[in-house]
Amino acid sequence: MSSEARAPARSYLFAPGGSEKLLERVFAAGSDAVVLDLEDAVPEGEKDLARRLVAERVAGRAGLRGPEVHVRVNAPDSPRVQEDIAAAVHPGLGAIRLPKAEEPALVQAVSRWIAQAEERRGLAAGSVRLDLTIETARGVARARELAACDPRVGRLVFGQADFLADVGAEAGPEGLETLYARSEVVIAARAAGLLAPLAGAHARLRDPEGLRRTAQAARRLGFGGMSAIHPEQVPVIHEVFTPTAAEAERAQELLRAYEEAIAAGFGAARLPDGRFVDRPIAERARRTVLLFAREQEERA
Amino acid sequence: MSSEARAPARSYLFAPGGSEKLLERVFAAGSDAVVLDLEDAVPEGEKDLARRLVAERVAGRAGLRGPEVHVRVNAPDSPRVQEDIAAAVHPGLGAIRLPKAEEPALVQAVSRWIAQAEERRGLAAGSVRLDLTIETARGVARARELAACDPRVGRLVFGQADFLADVGAEAGPEGLETLYARSEVVIAARAAGLLAPLAGAHARLRDPEGLRRTAQAARRLGFGGMSAIHPEQVPVIHEVFTPTAAEAERAQELLRAYEEAIAAGFGAARLPDGRFVDRPIAERARRTVLLFAREQEERA
Amino acid sequence: MSSEARAPARSYLFAPGGSEKLLERVFAAGSDAVVLDLEDAVPEGEKDLARRLVAERVAGRAGLRGPEVHVRVNAPDSPRVQEDIAAAVHPGLGAIRLPKAEEPALVQAVSRWIAQAEERRGLAAGSVRLDLTIETARGVARARELAACDPRVGRLVFGQADFLADVGAEAGPEGLETLYARSEVVIAARAAGLLAPLAGAHARLRDPEGLRRTAQAARRLGFGGMSAIHPEQVPVIHEVFTPTAAEAERAQELLRAYEEAIAAGFGAARLPDGRFVDRPIAERARRTVLLFAREQEERA
Repeated sequence: MSSEARAPARSYLFAPGGSEKLLERVFAAGSDAVVLDLEDAVPEGEKDLARRLVAERVAGRAGLRGPEVHVRVNAPDSPRVQEDIAAAVHPGLGAIRLPKAEEPALVQAVSRWIAQAEERRGLAAGSVRLDLTIETARGVARARELAACDPRVGRLVFGQADFLADVGAEAGPEGLETLYARSEVVIAARAAGLLAPLAGAHARLRDPEGLRRTAQAARRLGFGGMSAIHPEQVPVIHEVFTPTAAEAERAQELLRAYEEAIAAGFGAARLPDGRFVDRPIAERARRTVLLFAREQEERA
Repeated sequence: MSSEARAPARSYLFAPGGSEKLLERVFAAGSDAVVLDLEDAVPEGEKDLARRLVAERVAGRAGLRGPEVHVRVNAPDSPRVQEDIAAAVHPGLGAIRLPKAEEPALVQAVSRWIAQAEERRGLAAGSVRLDLTIETARGVARARELAACDPRVGRLVFGQADFLADVGAEAGPEGLETLYARSEVVIAARAAGLLAPLAGAHARLRDPEGLRRTAQAARRLGFGGMSAIHPEQVPVIHEVFTPTAAEAERAQELLRAYEEAIAAGFGAARLPDGRFVDRPIAERARRTVLLFAREQEERA
Repeated sequence: MSSEARAPARSYLFAPGGSEKLLERVFAAGSDAVVLDLEDAVPEGEKDLARRLVAERVAGRAGLRGPEVHVRVNAPDSPRVQEDIAAAVHPGLGAIRLPKAEEPALVQAVSRWIAQAEERRGLAAGSVRLDLTIETARGVARARELAACDPRVGRLVFGQADFLADVGAEAGPEGLETLYARSEVVIAARAAGLLAPLAGAHARLRDPEGLRRTAQAARRLGFGGMSAIHPEQVPVIHEVFTPTAAEAERAQELLRAYEEAIAAGFGAARLPDGRFVDRPIAERARRTVLLFAREQEERA
């Protein structure tokens, strides 16, 4: 999986699958990943056209540098999802994004359809990742099963706006209304050994401060990135989900203290400033240092 | 179920089953539902008297306009619950309220006893709803199973005071101590397709501001109504759980935008003011518009 | 179990198993329990030495007054845990503390090893309690199973620092990032009928105000005590987790009102100041009164 070779994507910028112009522009907006959308952003009458455009676009990216390429297909219980997958899977595709994940059995069916498409295209089995959007009460209630139901599942995404609507809730100023659901998604992802999950898009445009607060709260909770619905959101997302040089330095201090402790035969250490470090804390520090280094390198 | 024919009740006003006077007055206090109590409010020695009074009262309401009639029976593991059900089920009864729901098997047993009583009274099978109060750690831990264990289950209620006592907790100023439990109840109810759940009563009397804040937090989280222990609480509960004209208007705008998007073949729309609407959001808006319209009509 | 005979411990002070000096001093610091550590605080090369020191120390405490004696062993999947248990179990041992609890099957294996050690030492079966630290996403995800998987399990502990590191989270000012996990641990413990769980240590030293806030939040949520990594933390922990005379008095009022209500045949009561009391609330009040009385007595 590409997630092994490079830092996990922090930003996922959406483009409507039916718009030739936006399908081109989206690649130049600087996001770590793009999501070419065959679902909500495509009118009923244009689904076939969009599938053709998306298929061309994905195939055309094979071997190129640039953002990871993902395709959002229609919901797993829709009659379209199989055709969407057949159109999307090409060399160059990083992942299928599946909305409204609720039933592990349907996720497994989607994974088999991806496997068939991989085979037809001569791709290695398992080369296309499957990312699941949890955006309903049923999805949250089964998040742990969904995260663990198929080895292809790589990342969970929390779809906040649809979740709120599904349970009849509204977000208050501090987001307490989704704290349970967001925490559950983080724990389900981690318990299954997946990448840190993604937060859903900040729905309000031209609101960098609101976006920054939302992204910071998501990062503190254990999310690793965020969807974007406009290029203007990408820099703010990167700012929040990239460790700063100071954070990397502090993580490096923890790592150093931990490695000295291990060399001395201990399993944990306390730094002069009072910070404590054991194996899990050292591993998080190592991820921070790595993420910082990779970002430096990729931006170079 | 009556919940199909009219808007789901927002307020549930309790009356002690042993008090002839209060059993009469409670119907005139303006609540959407009344709960005639055979449990805590009835002393041991008066359980038989209370059953007779409640039975008469329920039977006497058949066919009348006015609040839905519910009866709270004793806990499912009490030897009294079967007799309570036998006394409560009459034409005119909307629902049995079961306290301390913890074990799906006991809930199913209660549902069978209700079915037997329905048959004896010549009521259609399933006409009496079963509402479950979740008010212990075990109840929260099994909330999803409880919500889905029997088709008669219609609404969950979160009993905050007893839950806090059961786990040895106390509510702080923001209610964070019950956020997990309240969120779980909302998700369990929605995942099982039940009505929006009810918040437990605000225990402090003559505290309209505290009641309003509690009710607003509950509504934001996805609750659809609240218990009341005094008639003075009913207007505040209605104020909070009824959409305002402005909210109904905003919901109407979302619906209009969504319907135009669908007509144009899209699955979602963004309004000029930046709001986004897809199917789940449109469905919530439709519930808001409907609720507003019904309340207008019922108040007319 | 000792928890029946005396008030459940509020403070658990750690001492490194390899330090003869600290293993002696820790008993005099005034904590309700001490935890002699064979895990993180002991370097690899000193594990055998530490086992000998801890074994002597535990055996030497048999029959003495003073804090409960607990031993933290290495993680359940480590090759050392069996030897750790064999060394730790002696008359005088209150409990084995197991870190990184994730798999019920491993917890059951640990419990069997304790049973074998009890038999070898001529201890009554089940006399050594098993306390589980939940400190990973997998541990939180299986907390309910872990709490209920073996009758020897007596108390859960939430390891906040490692949990945050495991899910890649950081604690914000209000601790919202662990609210789900902490709530789950409280509910899992209570649903399984265990003692109120323990909060992990406050990692920052010389920070009595931060410690007090953390401990107060833990207590409000339903925790019954806290780990300590320095003797200076013990008095603050005791202050927070001991009912005050005023709290005991208020609890006594509730109990009195409840008992009068029961005597009059009622199941619940409302006090003149508006407070409501039913059985679960009375039981919590009874625990408060008992805890206050026992503390008074033990301090006498």
